[in-house]
Amino acid sequence: MESLINFAEEQQPSPVMTNSWSKQEAGKSEMPKYAGGFVLVHAGAGYHSESKAKEYKHVCKRACQRAVDQLRAGALAVEAVTAALVELEDSPFTNAGMGSNLNLSGEIECDASIMDGKSLHFGAVGSISGIKNPVLVANCLLTEAQKGKLSAGRIPPCFLVGRGAHDWAISHGIPPCPSEKMATKFSLSAYKRNKRKMEMAEKMDAGQNQEKKRRQSSENENGSGCLDTVGAVVVDSEGNVAAAVSSGGLAMKHPGRVGQAAHYGCGSWAENACNMNSYSAAVSTSGCGEHLIRTMLARECSAAMQSEDAHQALLEAMQNKFINDRGGPEPDQRIYVDFRQTSNRKKEYGSPFLVSEDRVLGGVIVLRCCRCVEAQPSPNIQGAMVEFLWSHTTESMCVGYMSAQDSKAKTHISRLPPGTVPGKSLAIEGGVCRLTGIVD
Amino acid sequence: MESLINFAEEQQPSPVMTNSWSKQEAGKSEMPKYAGGFVLVHAGAGYHSESKAKEYKHVCKRACQRAVDQLRAGALAVEAVTAALVELEDSPFTNAGMGSNLNLSGEIECDASIMDGKSLHFGAVGSISGIKNPVLVANCLLTEAQKGKLSAGRIPPCFLVGRGAHDWAISHGIPPCPSEKMATKFSLSAYKRNKRKMEMAEKMDAGQNQEKKRRQSSENENGSGCLDTVGAVVVDSEGNVAAAVSSGGLAMKHPGRVGQAAHYGCGSWAENACNMNSYSAAVSTSGCGEHLIRTMLARECSAAMQSEDAHQALLEAMQNKFINDRGGPEPDQRIYVDFRQTSNRKKEYGSPFLVSEDRVLGGVIVLRCCRCVEAQPSPNIQGAMVEFLWSHTTESMCVGYMSAQDSKAKTHISRLPPGTVPGKSLAIEGGVCRLTGIVD
Repeated sequence: MESLINFAEEQQPSPVMTNSWSKQEAGKSEMPKYAGGFVLVHAGAGYHSESKAKEYKHVCKRACQRAVDQLRAGALAVEAVTAALVELEDSPFTNAGMGSNLNLSGEIECDASIMDGKSLHFGAVGSISGIKNPVLVANCLLTEAQKGKLSAGRIPPCFLVGRGAHDWAISHGIPPCPSEKMATKFSLSAYKRNKRKMEMAEKMDAGQNQEKKRRQSSENENGSGCLDTVGAVVVDSEGNVAAAVSSGGLAMKHPGRVGQAAHYGCGSWAENACNMNSYSAAVSTSGCGEHLIRTMLARECSAAMQSEDAHQALLEAMQNKFINDRGGPEPDQRIYVDFRQTSNRKKEYGSPFLVSEDRVLGGVIVLRCCRCVEAQPSPNIQGAMVEFLWSHTTESMCVGYMSAQDSKAKTHISRLPPGTVPGKSLAIEGGVCRLTGIVD
Repeated sequence: MESLINFAEEQQPSPVMTNSWSKQEAGKSEMPKYAGGFVLVHAGAGYHSESKAKEYKHVCKRACQRAVDQLRAGALAVEAVTAALVELEDSPFTNAGMGSNLNLSGEIECDASIMDGKSLHFGAVGSISGIKNPVLVANCLLTEAQKGKLSAGRIPPCFLVGRGAHDWAISHGIPPCPSEKMATKFSLSAYKRNKRKMEMAEKMDAGQNQEKKRRQSSENENGSGCLDTVGAVVVDSEGNVAAAVSSGGLAMKHPGRVGQAAHYGCGSWAENACNMNSYSAAVSTSGCGEHLIRTMLARECSAAMQSEDAHQALLEAMQNKFINDRGGPEPDQRIYVDFRQTSNRKKEYGSPFLVSEDRVLGGVIVLRCCRCVEAQPSPNIQGAMVEFLWSHTTESMCVGYMSAQDSKAKTHISRLPPGTVPGKSLAIEGGVCRLTGIVD
């Protein structure tokens, strides 16, 4: 496996020296305002055609703007991340909410989850139909659970699926949306195309035995197909983090299939800094749900963020906890250039959970944050250092990011270099952003 | 918080000296047969009335026997654990399969999952109706996923819910069962009783404001109610481990609610020894699903099993990763008697995930295994050391265990000592079992 590191096209203008950080500050009770916070969104790890690049970037830009509008108005991270997700779900170009992939029966069933790093509460819906914005249901579950127990001491649910999830949403004021309105011309034609492909593949395989057929079909174009789950990670003006993810799931999935987007620890993760963690961290994943579930990738990447070097920690998490990278010599060349790294490092062990998989497809966006104290110009000026990263083994990943201090979002489609094999190679990029604040 | 440690009523007859262990053996490629293996089952952490104690013990005994029958016939751990679960689900006394709790609409919706420590594959169903043995669907999902990709390169699902899960099961040869046949006289009368209670509670609270109502109701009898999910952990003759869990979920749950039994890392976990882990470990949990999900208790307990002292590691995992135990002085008294321990140890930090919960209700069964070499009488005689433990914060937990060398299973209802508060105290017990084997 070669780990292939691209350069972020657009970096935050003023990288801050890492020695100005003070991790010890994370546990302090004062809450300096960080001029509004920061958001990083993704429109999926999968394949983003050049012809639609503009659309993908545009929706990421709008999602960032929505979150920043919330942050500037004093919203908490969990509200801002929800706002970003609603925008991403509403785009007909993403595989979430409107325009989601159709399942084997030609229906739309969505998964979504949200996690609040402050309360560590989690809300998720799986296989939900007839709701335009599944993230609103996940967020409502999270909010309701924080209110305490229901009548007769019943514990409020954190995860609802199917018809029950739909009915709960309606009873909590979330409007229904006819499923036929959620399908787009594009998703319907993709369904017809996929159905034809499936029928052809099954016809071709009919003469072969079942075992052989299933192994052989693993090399097909699904690996490079559209897996564009959406997600976002946010840090707010109080330093709270939140993460969310939403997905229409794999095209032609079996009805009732739930992917990582609804799965605790797999689709989204957020943890504020505390006695045990020096850094606040938030993660949102995208890609092949089953691979992301079995490797519990969101939580693994979040845990890795407690290491000193965020970039190296994410690289190692993707290599050791995700892609199936076994054997091969240790390379002699490792060059670090801030957050821009070129590496051919080969690891001895990949994830033990996916040894039988020839290609492991997924991507993550990660944000970590800690307060920093600069000696200059004044010890009273505090702020937060936000490190943001994305990494993917899919052909491409579309991201956008923006701080509340910025006038507009920056967007980027990260791609594996030509000639590399999706599912066996990875790209990793990122940047840093300094949020200034003044101690009250 | 006081951690209250009971004594196992029935212990395996011949505890083995721990210095006879050789953890390094765990990674070896030879596979000595351990005379069939070992099973530990539970009929839930919750409340087991004295009047039904005989029934609970009896079903645990039968479940152990079913697993051991499989093990003696050369079955793998994953098959044996499934056999045990089928027996537990079929009992009308447990809250799984037949006799499951009814939801708010008076319907039965079940969750189940299974994990194979050898392949690390996982299968789960959530909110499934009309299937007598949900564990069979989970096991079938696991087996199908191991066969590789579906036609046109589609990735097989590991988690199905609702109607889709039901239809998938039927199409894979699992027979349907009319829901009305799965309800018992007991579950129907419990539903009517709960419904009345709920209506009364809502009527009483009608005059109070919503916030107050929800906080106040947290002290009711749901905390000591029946939460008796079932589960099992197995090690087979090749040293493979597997874990499974099955549940009808909380009584009066919202339709579509999915609990820990279907949740990866929360209901069951199994990992064979490998380069990274000296011990094979398997865990199955029971209790309040939302608490078990948010603390990811199965995976946490499994990870703890890589520590030297299994008992101490489980105690610390329950204290630090589960119950909400903050503050209080460190006690001066800690007495260890093999696996029988009395401790009043107070920890500084409980789980950060459940700080707002006044009572945290759950239980686990844990098995860990490693090969051992005894200096006497011959270095060629190898075997496996199985340590098995259970711990719960609920009023009681019913367990059974049996090795393939035993003529019958041993059963036990572990109870918190009188006067202690469920959800704030814990009991921990266990035993050791030596499985002999000869190097081929």
